[in-house]
Amino acid sequence: MTEPLRLGIAGLGTVGAGVVKIVRQKAQLLADRSGRHVEISAVAARNRDKDRGVSLSDYAWEDDAVALATRDDIDVFVELMGGSDGPAKAATEAALNAGKDVVTANKALLAYHGQSLAELAETKGAVLRFEAAVAGGIPIIKALTEGLAGNDILRVMGVMNGTCNYILTRMEEAGLTYQQAFEEADSLGFLEADPELDVGGIDAGHKLALLASIAYGTQVNFEAVELEGIGRVTIEDIRQAGDMGFRIKLLGVSRMTGRGLEQTMAPCLVPATSPLGQLSGGTNMVVVEGDQVGQIVMRGAGAGEGPTASAVMGDILDIARGTRLSTFGQPATSLKPCTPARATTSAPYYLRMSLLDKPGALARVATVLGEAGISINRMRQYRHDENTAPVLIVTHKTTRAALDDAISALPATGVVSGEPVVLRIEQV
Amino acid sequence: MTEPLRLGIAGLGTVGAGVVKIVRQKAQLLADRSGRHVEISAVAARNRDKDRGVSLSDYAWEDDAVALATRDDIDVFVELMGGSDGPAKAATEAALNAGKDVVTANKALLAYHGQSLAELAETKGAVLRFEAAVAGGIPIIKALTEGLAGNDILRVMGVMNGTCNYILTRMEEAGLTYQQAFEEADSLGFLEADPELDVGGIDAGHKLALLASIAYGTQVNFEAVELEGIGRVTIEDIRQAGDMGFRIKLLGVSRMTGRGLEQTMAPCLVPATSPLGQLSGGTNMVVVEGDQVGQIVMRGAGAGEGPTASAVMGDILDIARGTRLSTFGQPATSLKPCTPARATTSAPYYLRMSLLDKPGALARVATVLGEAGISINRMRQYRHDENTAPVLIVTHKTTRAALDDAISALPATGVVSGEPVVLRIEQV
Repeated sequence: MTEPLRLGIAGLGTVGAGVVKIVRQKAQLLADRSGRHVEISAVAARNRDKDRGVSLSDYAWEDDAVALATRDDIDVFVELMGGSDGPAKAATEAALNAGKDVVTANKALLAYHGQSLAELAETKGAVLRFEAAVAGGIPIIKALTEGLAGNDILRVMGVMNGTCNYILTRMEEAGLTYQQAFEEADSLGFLEADPELDVGGIDAGHKLALLASIAYGTQVNFEAVELEGIGRVTIEDIRQAGDMGFRIKLLGVSRMTGRGLEQTMAPCLVPATSPLGQLSGGTNMVVVEGDQVGQIVMRGAGAGEGPTASAVMGDILDIARGTRLSTFGQPATSLKPCTPARATTSAPYYLRMSLLDKPGALARVATVLGEAGISINRMRQYRHDENTAPVLIVTHKTTRAALDDAISALPATGVVSGEPVVLRIEQV
Repeated sequence: MTEPLRLGIAGLGTVGAGVVKIVRQKAQLLADRSGRHVEISAVAARNRDKDRGVSLSDYAWEDDAVALATRDDIDVFVELMGGSDGPAKAATEAALNAGKDVVTANKALLAYHGQSLAELAETKGAVLRFEAAVAGGIPIIKALTEGLAGNDILRVMGVMNGTCNYILTRMEEAGLTYQQAFEEADSLGFLEADPELDVGGIDAGHKLALLASIAYGTQVNFEAVELEGIGRVTIEDIRQAGDMGFRIKLLGVSRMTGRGLEQTMAPCLVPATSPLGQLSGGTNMVVVEGDQVGQIVMRGAGAGEGPTASAVMGDILDIARGTRLSTFGQPATSLKPCTPARATTSAPYYLRMSLLDKPGALARVATVLGEAGISINRMRQYRHDENTAPVLIVTHKTTRAALDDAISALPATGVVSGEPVVLRIEQV
């Protein structure tokens, strides 16, 4: 057996503590599988005195992650601090500059700086891996980068924010309003300090952008993800979708088109009988479609100590075994700049709007849609509640651009109150 | 870019032709992702003149797979012939002896000779990989060997024979008898030349044994798989299971217990709402449960040109990238001999038997079960059809051993006709 692989772990929250526990408790298993002993040399976190449920006395302590990252006695810098900038970025750069391999669970860091960090890693002959950054314990980065590497990837889809899926599931199953379900998730500690990272789709958008880079060989471009949160989804939307055989999910979709890369993260309707539609609670699912393999579905816990630590350990064991992979599946300098395309792949859409109680109101809405070239598949108007009545429309396949044209023409009709809710029906 | 990686492909059936097409059509993609050009030097098959829908004129031809395997101008021997012995085994051994890496889709070869071949590969410094041998396009070998390597694996389950799942799905959805569904599958070309490989669970058992070796660090032991085919499942069983909220699947289950390794491949009842229960048609699914990651579910096409070729290419690209992994996830010489344990993990069971029209018949059966310590959850007797009446029993959790005791005592009651059908209800 060769020299031990020595880790420096920065960040000792839930995931960091989980990694420490695995390294301590599974020493023999890890050595059997990787051919090397995996050891921890040093750790760093903000608060040295906090009880993390695991002994740290065998390891050197650093208050400063950068100091940890550059220690002579570590081979792999394990970055579990989080944050797209600040100490996480500084320490990751310091580690790579010192020729250390880096394993990170930090999706935000890579969504913003993945390209430059991957280039730095390659310049220094280091590897930078991030399985734990996307979909928790599901080994999707590995599947996409390696297992499915013989495919042209056609589409990548995912429900990758367990908190949003929890909120939507609770609305559906317990009849809670969005606000009630949000507050329940908050009270259970499911929400990020800035909840918009979850419910605004930002966190899931980071993950989608990372998957797209690997899938299509393009530089990560999070800014180009069309983001829409779940805050405007109502319980009525969920019920109506259910009546039509659909469920609403915060769904990320990326596909490469002739015009460029489409990336959307938005609440969508998916068939209730599809794997995505059957997903409940905090579970994540990623669907990859390749020209050879067809559709591959992977499902598992998207967060939590064990699942995330499992993903971190997968990357560490790859390094212990001598596997040297490019961060995004091919040399960073060969990744093509991402040409973002407004998502214009045509799809059926679900629309909900409030119609004022005026004669001919429904006809005017139908006319506006018709003039934008949008064909209506189903339309239902419900009884008036005070001055407005909800109208639900399912269109035949159309483009988001045509819909936006129609929606921008709606105020001039004088019969629509407020902004319509527009949800794509994703064919899965 | 380093030297090209040169392939020798033996076996040009559906999968072999698929691999050739990918290498020809995706040369740039493969080079971008792996850092090496992937080329074909030579091919071998039984019939040189057959039109395989792809040009082979650029490649040297060998009639003999052993001759192909040892050519100086190949780096990787790609074995797509099939068969547990004969030319596939001879050529694989020849390639490994010559220090060539081997990629194979041959589950039977590895189920019987995996241990000796893996040891040979290691002795010669070669790698032997087999992603395509299990669950077609699903990158489950990679997930289990690498992505989940930080876990103690608790249970591996899988629906891994698409033909059986097709037959059971057709019985359920179209109300066909087993024989009708079998004949339909046969007419569609879904069955192996020896159909018992499919419907007897042998093919799926090979796959289960390979997964167990990786999961538990034990030498492959296919002989220890408790096999039961789907031939005795009737449409009544499927309907009764459905009424109780279950579906019947040919399910492989392996788990390590204190007594040894349990491996069963048998028709089981699984909850209709579980991912396994929702699987229809020829699709495969593998479920892995780890102590850290929880439950990971992977679903995809289990056979066919594209999916299987995708898996073969994944292994080839790993080799092109310089990834060197042990066949079963750790050095073959460190794999523990498999101590097989009769599956005695307790579970609820579904029983169907034919009761003779005699007074007190049901009471006698219930007494026999009670004397074997088996507690009855539900019991239904249907009206007599000529001389016998079907009786369906769902037990509380019990062991297969207790059930077998009870069943062996049934003939003495003189009220049971024929052999009961016994199906485990798997908790998933």
